[in-house]
Amino acid sequence: MAVVVTLDEKRRRGPSLEPLLALCAQDMERVNRVISGGMQSSVALIPTLADYLVNAGGKRMRPLLTIAAAKLCGYDGEHHVKLAACVEFIHSATLLHDDVVDGSGLRRGKPAANSVWGDKASVLVGDFLFTRAFELMVEVGSLDVLGILSNASSVIAEGEVLQLSIANDISIGEGVYMDVIKAKTAKLFAAAAEVSPVIAGRPQAERVALAAYGMNLGIAFQLVDDALDYGGTAAKLGKAVGDDFREGKVTLPVILAFLRGEPEERAFWKRVMEKLEQTDADLQHALALLQKHNALADTLDRARHYGAMARDALGLFADSPMKRAMLEAIDFAIERAH
Amino acid sequence: MAVVVTLDEKRRRGPSLEPLLALCAQDMERVNRVISGGMQSSVALIPTLADYLVNAGGKRMRPLLTIAAAKLCGYDGEHHVKLAACVEFIHSATLLHDDVVDGSGLRRGKPAANSVWGDKASVLVGDFLFTRAFELMVEVGSLDVLGILSNASSVIAEGEVLQLSIANDISIGEGVYMDVIKAKTAKLFAAAAEVSPVIAGRPQAERVALAAYGMNLGIAFQLVDDALDYGGTAAKLGKAVGDDFREGKVTLPVILAFLRGEPEERAFWKRVMEKLEQTDADLQHALALLQKHNALADTLDRARHYGAMARDALGLFADSPMKRAMLEAIDFAIERAH
Repeated sequence: MAVVVTLDEKRRRGPSLEPLLALCAQDMERVNRVISGGMQSSVALIPTLADYLVNAGGKRMRPLLTIAAAKLCGYDGEHHVKLAACVEFIHSATLLHDDVVDGSGLRRGKPAANSVWGDKASVLVGDFLFTRAFELMVEVGSLDVLGILSNASSVIAEGEVLQLSIANDISIGEGVYMDVIKAKTAKLFAAAAEVSPVIAGRPQAERVALAAYGMNLGIAFQLVDDALDYGGTAAKLGKAVGDDFREGKVTLPVILAFLRGEPEERAFWKRVMEKLEQTDADLQHALALLQKHNALADTLDRARHYGAMARDALGLFADSPMKRAMLEAIDFAIERAH
Repeated sequence: MAVVVTLDEKRRRGPSLEPLLALCAQDMERVNRVISGGMQSSVALIPTLADYLVNAGGKRMRPLLTIAAAKLCGYDGEHHVKLAACVEFIHSATLLHDDVVDGSGLRRGKPAANSVWGDKASVLVGDFLFTRAFELMVEVGSLDVLGILSNASSVIAEGEVLQLSIANDISIGEGVYMDVIKAKTAKLFAAAAEVSPVIAGRPQAERVALAAYGMNLGIAFQLVDDALDYGGTAAKLGKAVGDDFREGKVTLPVILAFLRGEPEERAFWKRVMEKLEQTDADLQHALALLQKHNALADTLDRARHYGAMARDALGLFADSPMKRAMLEAIDFAIERAH
């Protein structure tokens, strides 16, 4: 798995997730088996739909964090594998419900589960995956872990409702946007990393550190995703450029451009994002406005700020290949936008 | 609260839920306060929608079971109040998702939450209530209780998917129908009653007994509900007669009439229930067929069978006002159909 690369090659390639993936590969295989096992049911629709989603080729960042954090803490038990599967189940359940709520037709470049099996099946199989996550957690038997993951689930659900209640409102400002992505994305990253020091019996300081690493990495990830939606390529992200734009999904790049814009620019954003009155030329105009106000670059700067905090959060851990891989993952999260 | 009635009066009135409600009234007040507190959120849509549902005037049978079972077991702690609220949250979450999946416009005689705030809000607030239930459970801190309620939630979710995948299929037979109502309704009744002996530290036999009481009572309740849908009055149940019929919801009365029917009767049931091709006269014809095959009376006979098992499940508990009230609740569940 480990390939020797010269420092020069590495610089040319840029930061990569590969070292982290390589260090976690064996455990991630086991996570995948627990995930497959947990989706089984005599009700055939459950494994069919769950398998479609879970094996749709996501990066599995969240379970990866649980495994990585466990290894960073020197954990040598078995619970991290189950908890990593839990975290992926919670994530998958929210994706299923998200797709129903967003009405977006694609997920990672494939038709979303609800466009194949319908909204009803997505709601109910989402519920099933969520309850399976809790069953797995209970098997692990740590009340501290249950507290972390049930609180995270509750915060995610609250964040989803918050997002729904401000949908298409371009004047929410940066603060509310940050509240949404912390709740919807970063909280589960934080919980995924935090459970590992708990099962490893590590001191409170490491628990706080890993939760902070996960939280800040999650925020950085989401900020970059939101910038990529206006600057990435369809092949890269599995969705077309401008998906958020077409759905009227209010993200930081647009919020910044709106706040910095002239009155007629604000009228444009209100028309396209709030009323969803869009012509073919509007996406190009939107991209020009984002460029004019430096909104994408500044969104990435915000991401760098959180990346720096994620990096410092790991400060108290001794140097190790795993620590270096986790630090490189931060750089990867940010640099993939270039 | 306690009113002296003569035996004659009691016989005339028939069995009642009142004694159980009276014995649990004080604790149920506290349950209601925990429920109200648990729905609070800075995201205004959450308490608004949750309050609409939770205070819609349901009988609160499930939390009532938790409180009653706790008192039957002589429990003198505080956890039963939180767990009763948990159980109601789980139930409310499934109602919200059910209404989205069923597309039925009414819930307890009022417009269902999803017809007021939309499907999206119902999906997400359902998720929120469900996660709050788990947070409350974790606060109680019993892994046995967490095991019971997470397993029940998983079985409910599986039952929902099963029901969806056989929707409008009139040939499922009695066995699959029983699987659905056990999973969707009775399992939570069982779990609601089972958690109380656990927190009271009572022997395994009492845990098994109360789970059996809840399970069988839940089955009887659902069977009677399904019969009432063809024989009750709109005022009584908060929904019009024939709701299940109009939705093509396959319940035991119809399954029995279908199985016992002539070929042309089966063709009728397939047209109205599977293809949902219905004229105004069809409900009357359906009621006549149910009558002809004694389907409603036999559904109630099935309910009596489960009621008898619920009664015997309490056999090992000494006589007490609470035990008598719990036994009368069984009779009430069944006799309300007359």
